[in-house]
Amino acid sequence: MKKSFLNKLTIVLLVAISTLSGFKVQAQEKPVDLVYPHLDAANSRWFFFSSACRPFGMVNLSPDNEIGGAWGSGYRYDTHEVKGISHVHAWQLSALSVMPVNGEAKDLKDDYYSPFSHETEVVAPGYHKFILDRFGITAELTSTTRVGFHKYSFSKAEQKSILVKLNGPNGPCKIVDGKIEKVNSREFTGYVTNAPTRRRPKETPVFFYIELSEPTQELVTWQENEISEKSKGVEGMDAGAMLVFKDKQEKPLLMKVGISYCSAEEAKNNIKVELNHWDFDKVAADSKEDWNNWLSKIQVKGASKNDRVRFYTDLWHGLQGRRIISDASGTYCDMTGDGRKVKQIPLDKNGKPKFNHHNFDAMWGAQWTIATLWPLAYPQVASDFCNSMLNYYNDGGLIPRGPSGGNYTYVMVGASSTPFVVSTWMKGIQDFDIDLAYEGLKKNHMVGGIMGKAGYEHRTSEGGGIDKYIELGYVPHPHAPRAEAYHKDGAGMTMEYSFQDWTLAQLAKSLGKTDDYNYFLKRSSNWKNLFDTSYGFIRPKDNEGNWRTPYDPYEYQNDGFVESNAAQMTWYIPQDYAGLAELMGSKAAMASKLNNEFAQAQKLGFTAGKKHSDENRKRARNISINYGNQPSMQCAYIFNDIGAAWLTQKWSRAVIDSVYTGVSPYVGFNGDEDQGLMGSLSVLMKIGLFQLDAGASENPKYQIGSPIFNEITISLSDNYYSGKTFKITANNNSKENIYVQSVKLNGKSLGRMYLLHDEIISGGEMVLEMGPEPNKELK
Amino acid sequence: MKKSFLNKLTIVLLVAISTLSGFKVQAQEKPVDLVYPHLDAANSRWFFFSSACRPFGMVNLSPDNEIGGAWGSGYRYDTHEVKGISHVHAWQLSALSVMPVNGEAKDLKDDYYSPFSHETEVVAPGYHKFILDRFGITAELTSTTRVGFHKYSFSKAEQKSILVKLNGPNGPCKIVDGKIEKVNSREFTGYVTNAPTRRRPKETPVFFYIELSEPTQELVTWQENEISEKSKGVEGMDAGAMLVFKDKQEKPLLMKVGISYCSAEEAKNNIKVELNHWDFDKVAADSKEDWNNWLSKIQVKGASKNDRVRFYTDLWHGLQGRRIISDASGTYCDMTGDGRKVKQIPLDKNGKPKFNHHNFDAMWGAQWTIATLWPLAYPQVASDFCNSMLNYYNDGGLIPRGPSGGNYTYVMVGASSTPFVVSTWMKGIQDFDIDLAYEGLKKNHMVGGIMGKAGYEHRTSEGGGIDKYIELGYVPHPHAPRAEAYHKDGAGMTMEYSFQDWTLAQLAKSLGKTDDYNYFLKRSSNWKNLFDTSYGFIRPKDNEGNWRTPYDPYEYQNDGFVESNAAQMTWYIPQDYAGLAELMGSKAAMASKLNNEFAQAQKLGFTAGKKHSDENRKRARNISINYGNQPSMQCAYIFNDIGAAWLTQKWSRAVIDSVYTGVSPYVGFNGDEDQGLMGSLSVLMKIGLFQLDAGASENPKYQIGSPIFNEITISLSDNYYSGKTFKITANNNSKENIYVQSVKLNGKSLGRMYLLHDEIISGGEMVLEMGPEPNKELK
Repeated sequence: MKKSFLNKLTIVLLVAISTLSGFKVQAQEKPVDLVYPHLDAANSRWFFFSSACRPFGMVNLSPDNEIGGAWGSGYRYDTHEVKGISHVHAWQLSALSVMPVNGEAKDLKDDYYSPFSHETEVVAPGYHKFILDRFGITAELTSTTRVGFHKYSFSKAEQKSILVKLNGPNGPCKIVDGKIEKVNSREFTGYVTNAPTRRRPKETPVFFYIELSEPTQELVTWQENEISEKSKGVEGMDAGAMLVFKDKQEKPLLMKVGISYCSAEEAKNNIKVELNHWDFDKVAADSKEDWNNWLSKIQVKGASKNDRVRFYTDLWHGLQGRRIISDASGTYCDMTGDGRKVKQIPLDKNGKPKFNHHNFDAMWGAQWTIATLWPLAYPQVASDFCNSMLNYYNDGGLIPRGPSGGNYTYVMVGASSTPFVVSTWMKGIQDFDIDLAYEGLKKNHMVGGIMGKAGYEHRTSEGGGIDKYIELGYVPHPHAPRAEAYHKDGAGMTMEYSFQDWTLAQLAKSLGKTDDYNYFLKRSSNWKNLFDTSYGFIRPKDNEGNWRTPYDPYEYQNDGFVESNAAQMTWYIPQDYAGLAELMGSKAAMASKLNNEFAQAQKLGFTAGKKHSDENRKRARNISINYGNQPSMQCAYIFNDIGAAWLTQKWSRAVIDSVYTGVSPYVGFNGDEDQGLMGSLSVLMKIGLFQLDAGASENPKYQIGSPIFNEITISLSDNYYSGKTFKITANNNSKENIYVQSVKLNGKSLGRMYLLHDEIISGGEMVLEMGPEPNKELK
Repeated sequence: MKKSFLNKLTIVLLVAISTLSGFKVQAQEKPVDLVYPHLDAANSRWFFFSSACRPFGMVNLSPDNEIGGAWGSGYRYDTHEVKGISHVHAWQLSALSVMPVNGEAKDLKDDYYSPFSHETEVVAPGYHKFILDRFGITAELTSTTRVGFHKYSFSKAEQKSILVKLNGPNGPCKIVDGKIEKVNSREFTGYVTNAPTRRRPKETPVFFYIELSEPTQELVTWQENEISEKSKGVEGMDAGAMLVFKDKQEKPLLMKVGISYCSAEEAKNNIKVELNHWDFDKVAADSKEDWNNWLSKIQVKGASKNDRVRFYTDLWHGLQGRRIISDASGTYCDMTGDGRKVKQIPLDKNGKPKFNHHNFDAMWGAQWTIATLWPLAYPQVASDFCNSMLNYYNDGGLIPRGPSGGNYTYVMVGASSTPFVVSTWMKGIQDFDIDLAYEGLKKNHMVGGIMGKAGYEHRTSEGGGIDKYIELGYVPHPHAPRAEAYHKDGAGMTMEYSFQDWTLAQLAKSLGKTDDYNYFLKRSSNWKNLFDTSYGFIRPKDNEGNWRTPYDPYEYQNDGFVESNAAQMTWYIPQDYAGLAELMGSKAAMASKLNNEFAQAQKLGFTAGKKHSDENRKRARNISINYGNQPSMQCAYIFNDIGAAWLTQKWSRAVIDSVYTGVSPYVGFNGDEDQGLMGSLSVLMKIGLFQLDAGASENPKYQIGSPIFNEITISLSDNYYSGKTFKITANNNSKENIYVQSVKLNGKSLGRMYLLHDEIISGGEMVLEMGPEPNKELK
């Protein structure tokens, strides 16, 4: 009775939250209550949407409305039909789609989709409830990190069943093989196997262990059209299963599903470790509390309710997507070699794994997003990712830039992990093997490393052009015509390599490797070889050193630049904006030019479109600066570095207003949040701290921008940092008062427009006075 | 009988010519026979098409298929209906539309249009024949300079009449007033008055005198709907007239129509002086011979028949449009003051006028077209135009840039006549008052002159911004928001003023005016104030010196540039390409950039569209280099000046191939030939001689390009030049062999890629060896 009452109360509260009403008294606001999971859900891709999921959770359980393809699939707001409930929505991977139903296998096995309605839906961090209208079943979902927890309330008691999908399309690929085996009437185990993809070329099984709150009457399985009643299990292609219950009452049915990339046993163990009870509401509440703790690492006050909702939704996105793949025991699956190998993360003195191992989409753009956010507010996460990368290095011989299924995908280009690792180290997060890391990073920057490979280049190492880069000082474009790879864009790669070289040089310097420092520092100026002074823009060169012709600085992609154009990539030189200014005439000339590029981009709303696919529309994709993707998302903060801080304030606020302010299923991240990158970017711009160079230099700088909140309090990790909190106060802040008039740090005028890492992590307060007119003297 | 036979033969020949068949033996080719008057006629504007017209003829008699508006009117190839036959098709003017008909005034006065067919049409320089199918009347037209000569063959003898239009729309404006008066049964006189236009703000009458080969039965006139038979004449609004003949035979009716801007008497005198007989075929033959003499000043051999047809059609266009407005006696009408004043051109010792006075559309672009072509091959024309300009200066106090109806129009911007006058003088064509000219030119370049006026700025002198140009070193943009003017584009004006200043400085130097030389030379570098090194393009600045933002170098017009964009106008610095190269990094960098701009433009066929109105289409109008209008038409020849002559050869040939090669009513000059400018440009590019700086320096340079012909012979004027001919031979020339391998002048290696004026006018031969691969050493 009490539990039921609480349950109802929770639902009422969640409804209130999700509709953004109530909570007039700001003091009562909990960050988790502000998260709006439906943001951008109309433009969802497979791994974008989350509900029943923990931070970086291996399991993220949610209904799928579209199931075909990596794009436009998963939970899609405008498709009002559930086609299954999957446990894994990850980069190149899905796993275990189930569906509670009423009926018989013969009728339903190929026809079990059900309409649902947003009107009866509740969705919040760690919790999802919806009604399958066809069956009258209310499904509720929550999870621990590795276990999905289902609660199904059947309105009809007859033929209560749960369909288990063991084949067919599910997100980025087909499930080509599956198995389910009955352990006993309440426990089932098995796996589903993801077909290879162009990006993840090996079959990848995901194991599951199912535990039920009540016994099944029988397991019905099928293979193609042959249905087996009272089955012990089934395995192979075109298989499926239905768990049929004898219970004719309407009491809710609970189901735990442990997931593992290693084995069914580890899946079972994940349940044992993480979910040893049947109290669904407690898990939902725990999940909520878990999220609230994570989200509360950055507390904000002021601005509008809408702004705070969007902020915590952005932050929430910054803490998922790049999912854990190791088990509670520390086992994980190494797929870098010839076969599947189950391996073990070292354990600490308490017998717990020293870190969580991860899958993740590209680190391409991480330098301006998670490389700042995580070390600042979640240093343990940054540490885990560095250790994950070293784990891959130990297993496969390369530090990855976006692994999936325990193996490399070679997504995008360059050694995009280098800035992240260097930044983490430079910030004093040093609980990983830096010698091993340096060895791996350096390998990536040389022939034989990841800079030799362009996008998804699995079989060869030609598309990356590192040999040409070393020989000629740039990667020619076009080049490597026969290499089976995407993004063989020489100029774009040159720009990225140059910057990544600079970050590696900083680490070399810090480690006393002077020769390496000099070598990579020299390479870091290779961008100059592609700077065409006659246009003031980067321009591709061919193998003979001829400028690319015809050339249009705004022509999008396919012309030497990766998901960008020359105009955007010209600003991709955080290692040397002084050098760029010199080539453009002066810092003032450069600021004027960049200011104009922003003014041009503003006409298109600062993004190449509202959907990733919009970038195929010529006018939009030829934008001067694009805040819908990673290549030019640092641009607003460049002004800070060249004596025009007020323009950073102006344009970062304009971008926030235009791109990162809306709260609806139809806006958000222009259809591609990229697993925490765009969410993190938005968070950083909104708190007014940004690291142009990824924070890869010693005692790294944080550029001071124009925070949108009156108060921002960052909790500093006890394990890594000496201070308790760093607070930013922006007095007189408003939508109009976007300009910083003065900056004080701990009561003293700062005299510069950046903070040093040490100043933040030792705790304290920065006070900004805000006003409607720029103070152009602040530099 | 003999005459009739000759007539038929002529027609047969003309049909053959106009259909481009026959004439296999090149030696028999006469230039006049190659002219294809239908070129671009589908895109005609009022004054574009010509048939029965002499070089620069006051009269250009042709049928009008469309009569409303200055654009899309006159002879339009795809409109198969004659709506009248007008005697004047000029810049902002029309005059005297007539129509032979069968029928009565009451039936026809508002309904006399007739279908016609190209199949029965013959059109050639100086001759036009077509059948008015509704009436069965064959109309033939020819002319002297100031007299239209009509021959009408009626298939029905009943009610033979000629309708005379005295009101209604006719091209650029309405005819608002008209008069016809019977002198005797074979002579009639009167006038039609052109309504004011935005560009030509005064009512402008044009007088006529009609002489007929046979007597009329009566004159029928009307005013509104009131018809007067046996009328003595009519005058006023809404009037019209019909000449009705008593002759019931089918013998051809001949009509002479003298035209004058001064009076009916002068119109009559023009007939007396120019056409004192009734031999129609002789006049047609004379006109043809006249044209052939003019066209033969440049003789070409080689290339294809199609190429020669197009060449002489281009040249033919370069010799008309800018029409004579003074009478045979030398009287002309000065409309610059309060009223109409009939004035007299001074007479020479033989009692003939010393020069012909002219109307003309803008000199905007003349520096790269007629300022070279006319002094080179038609020095008398250049002289006449200089004297015309001085005449305007004497009458109205300003040297004009595009007068119409004896008055200023202030078309376009700047002192666009300066380079033309300076160029003419520098070439030794000095039979005009240079002191007066200098006084007038200098006035134009100062406050109070034409640089104070933007487009069509009649009442004020604000839009031109010369005061700001002198004060700030540039014309701000935006500026003069209240000035009633077009083209108030500050950056565009700055670029034009700077170049025009340089040409005036050259004249000042030549006249020993050192202070003026220094002053205008200094001003000629004002373009540098608008060069944005960060983009490598010209960029507008506002009154406070701020760069225009948002700014797109390719954004067309309305953003600081006159019928162009920043990218195009960046090359508008013929006075200082060395300076531009320095700002772009080097001559090589500049050449590389310009080469790329050409490669970009090539994608759009080097023009902003096939019609003037196409320039409203954003993609097309944002072209990097536009060979469909004047602002960037020198660009292919810039390479010659910066050490990359082979690129001049490459791109000038590519432009010719793409833009100036077609022969059909649907291609030609992209719908706007601009009264000889584009025709002249095409001629110059095809003979491979081009003057970047208009030839405004002492002993001016002619850049050597890539002629498309094997032999080009320019006849040099006995009156002005010492040599007899200058011949250009291009051995081994073809569509593939476009590159100059070597250059010899009079048997000696030239060692440079330009000729001096003296070298040409003293006669001789330049021999080019052509080949398929560039000789990059030639500089």
